[in-house]
Amino acid sequence: MNKELTQAMQQVETLMEQLVLDLTNDELLAKSMCYSLAAGGKRIRPQIFLATLQAFGVPLEEEALKIAAVIEMMHTYSLIHDDLPSVDDDDLRRGKPTNHKVFGEAMALFAGDALLTLCFEILAQLNLPSSIKTQLIAHLARAAGPSGIVAGQASDVQAEKQHVPLERLVQIHERKTGALLQYCFVAAGIVAGGSKEQFALLKTLGMDVGIAFQVRDDLLDILATTQELGKTAGRDLELEKSTYPALLGIQGAKQALADYLLKAKQACQMLAEDGMDMTELVKIIEKLELRD
Amino acid sequence: MNKELTQAMQQVETLMEQLVLDLTNDELLAKSMCYSLAAGGKRIRPQIFLATLQAFGVPLEEEALKIAAVIEMMHTYSLIHDDLPSVDDDDLRRGKPTNHKVFGEAMALFAGDALLTLCFEILAQLNLPSSIKTQLIAHLARAAGPSGIVAGQASDVQAEKQHVPLERLVQIHERKTGALLQYCFVAAGIVAGGSKEQFALLKTLGMDVGIAFQVRDDLLDILATTQELGKTAGRDLELEKSTYPALLGIQGAKQALADYLLKAKQACQMLAEDGMDMTELVKIIEKLELRD
Repeated sequence: MNKELTQAMQQVETLMEQLVLDLTNDELLAKSMCYSLAAGGKRIRPQIFLATLQAFGVPLEEEALKIAAVIEMMHTYSLIHDDLPSVDDDDLRRGKPTNHKVFGEAMALFAGDALLTLCFEILAQLNLPSSIKTQLIAHLARAAGPSGIVAGQASDVQAEKQHVPLERLVQIHERKTGALLQYCFVAAGIVAGGSKEQFALLKTLGMDVGIAFQVRDDLLDILATTQELGKTAGRDLELEKSTYPALLGIQGAKQALADYLLKAKQACQMLAEDGMDMTELVKIIEKLELRD
Repeated sequence: MNKELTQAMQQVETLMEQLVLDLTNDELLAKSMCYSLAAGGKRIRPQIFLATLQAFGVPLEEEALKIAAVIEMMHTYSLIHDDLPSVDDDDLRRGKPTNHKVFGEAMALFAGDALLTLCFEILAQLNLPSSIKTQLIAHLARAAGPSGIVAGQASDVQAEKQHVPLERLVQIHERKTGALLQYCFVAAGIVAGGSKEQFALLKTLGMDVGIAFQVRDDLLDILATTQELGKTAGRDLELEKSTYPALLGIQGAKQALADYLLKAKQACQMLAEDGMDMTELVKIIEKLELRD
């Protein structure tokens, strides 16, 4: 990571906590929200958003950092709700007990609701032109809501203990994981005022990275240990979830991952030819490769 | 209700279902969302929003109806999550089995998340100037999020089985019920472009109506039967919830209700003197009176 990005990512950590504390009126609720935000994770989403802004030549200032914080808050809400006993019933997330294990189910539910709602409050209050803010909000709501993440989660729950064909699995993951990762690229395009062609390429790139990310996650659930993952390994198999390795075998899933990442790098190449500096984004994408 | 308002309220019913079906990518999820929306209820929130628009002399057109639909969707999401087993564990709502009783806990959770997110997608896509849309979004997020509804819900859960002083109870209800009811008045002011003075009066009026509504709800929980309520009567007592009748006695709570409604009517009077036509709103407020 370049120095500006490294510094910005550190600021995002502080900013998330500060935003929650400033905008929350119940102490225990704020604690529960901050607990899951502070639990770490790879932070790949805000990193991609900020690196895409850099690729456009936009400096990483206050408002950009807030959008990066919002993206990670949205992701964190979806994890808190996904981990609840009525959904995946996970005890461990990012190496720590899940939110409901620490704060109870009701507070975990509300921490998720609160983070989700806060995302829109923060975006609506940004010091940016209203037309940019409404675009950021419309795209985020679309990525997160009943045609994005929530649709993916709902379909995922229904797909448990069922044989799901590959195209249906891809569709679930486009929504559950792809939509928000795509948003990281697209949101940067909105802030930077990218061209129609750049938007189209960013959308393709975002979705390929999103699916690659999910295939990789499925593979790691099998190949890595609980300690390496920071969440319970082998959970997909236990829940009889439809996954890429289950459908394609481990080698087939590895090949699919390589294919998606190759496509992503080709889109980066085209954006670079269009004048964007894709160095940092290519590095992020290469880190997703799994080597034998 | 005047004819325009009656017709508009009918259109809001259809519109809510249509918006969910148009913007949701999972069939069972859409069904679960529509189930709770169609379950009825008094619809006082969209009614207040539309009646306030009328009071400003604004005709009730498509975009206004969408905002009214959004307000009811936001309220419905909060009910679905509040009824979950980990929170109030309610089996009955609006005379029908609660969402999780029909669709299971996971789908009820997601139906709530989806409705909440959809509200912001719809507002961001309205055919109105962006500056109005961002104001509508910022105020709604504030009313619904961790300084509004969610803060109230979180505090409410913590207040169970505890003796809570009256000022704390008022604060909980300002957030849990007051904030969204206040939004119904304020959102109309935003769309109509009200003056600073009108905004200030609408905010006071909205909060008084909001608290009155909650005091009335607490009273009905004791005085009415399950059939009259459409939700399980006596539930507050069972959950050892802090309520107005518990703190003030039934007569004291009735007096508090009358006081809040009187204050609300005084604010209406002042807005009428400012040139607004408050006839319909006064009627709505008078319907909240409980007679012996």
